[in-house]
Amino acid sequence: MPTSTRTKLRRMPSRGVYDRDTIDQILDEALVAHVGFASEDQPYVIPTLFARVGEQVYFHGSAASRTIRALGAGAPACFTVTLLDGLVLARSAVHHSVNYRSVVVLGVARAVEGLPERREAVRAFTERLIPGRWEEARPPTDKELKAISVLALSLDETSAKVRTGPPLDDEEDYALDVWAGVIPLHSTAGAPLPDPRLSSGVGPSDAVRRWTPQRA
Amino acid sequence: MPTSTRTKLRRMPSRGVYDRDTIDQILDEALVAHVGFASEDQPYVIPTLFARVGEQVYFHGSAASRTIRALGAGAPACFTVTLLDGLVLARSAVHHSVNYRSVVVLGVARAVEGLPERREAVRAFTERLIPGRWEEARPPTDKELKAISVLALSLDETSAKVRTGPPLDDEEDYALDVWAGVIPLHSTAGAPLPDPRLSSGVGPSDAVRRWTPQRA
Repeated sequence: MPTSTRTKLRRMPSRGVYDRDTIDQILDEALVAHVGFASEDQPYVIPTLFARVGEQVYFHGSAASRTIRALGAGAPACFTVTLLDGLVLARSAVHHSVNYRSVVVLGVARAVEGLPERREAVRAFTERLIPGRWEEARPPTDKELKAISVLALSLDETSAKVRTGPPLDDEEDYALDVWAGVIPLHSTAGAPLPDPRLSSGVGPSDAVRRWTPQRA
Repeated sequence: MPTSTRTKLRRMPSRGVYDRDTIDQILDEALVAHVGFASEDQPYVIPTLFARVGEQVYFHGSAASRTIRALGAGAPACFTVTLLDGLVLARSAVHHSVNYRSVVVLGVARAVEGLPERREAVRAFTERLIPGRWEEARPPTDKELKAISVLALSLDETSAKVRTGPPLDDEEDYALDVWAGVIPLHSTAGAPLPDPRLSSGVGPSDAVRRWTPQRA
């Protein structure tokens, strides 16, 4: 995104306490990541659901997909998460920007082989979508766990980039008669839409009713 | 994201009228793209603002950045946009998913050299953030246009992937007493926050007051 002196770039080992907190907060608020890998010199960037568990993120997909095959075979990966917080409207066109928080994780993904760890990952995916949902949904069978692919990526090499605050205009532009500021953006949830095949008399569960995307 | 038989994958030349409409709609609704490129075997995925203009997308950044240097030098790129439309809650844990629309563009970016085209790109970025803003903001000077980097990527090789509709459970699970359905997600705007340095008496402009992120 457009760079500015307000953009703080941090690139550090995962042990930096303050920064790991920031990174974890961003990873735990985002629902979608974009995973990049290269296959015969062509990069691919694929959206994926994910969940952070401690020092790693889990993500998954069809075992047949090119993503999973390439990454499970040890191709270097880049895992990026971006939260859009607001539009930044400057007085001058070139200083328009957005407020955002993003995390970039570099590394080599590990294919999760054991069924207990796959079950833990599915639990994390389910709880990540809606906390409390794991207790409501039918748990995975061993057959289901054998059929899915799960990848894990360590947070060892992780950086965050954050832009906050008002626009930054050139000094002489502050006198201009142009409104400038920030329009905050939020993710909000609409009313739950029941599955047309829902058994009669089954209402939204506790987890569904109390869920809101504004957890940050 | 988790695959399902509801996921429709389309990979076609850009001339397919229906599908180009779908692709354009997704590109015109998203504010952020994730651009992937590889540098010495390491893929990078970087968020960027962008704007579609006809048969191409423009994106930009600091001329000093690794992204711009690599892509401007002809490295193959992948440009991905994802809109998250809802949480899909199935009766079984493994069939949880999300409704989304995504577009993937493959190609080699072109560094935009001419100042008139750079000006056109800045106009598109500004109008993309908030329609009508270009008429309000101070236009770029030639000096500013010389200092920025703009990349263009053709939409020749573009595909879209869309998931819509209710969860897909295993047939025997439909009898379970578990609420299932979709929680729609929307992007909404908060009240505009004026820049602390705003000249007194300057209120939100027409473009700012009438803007809403729900344009789709």
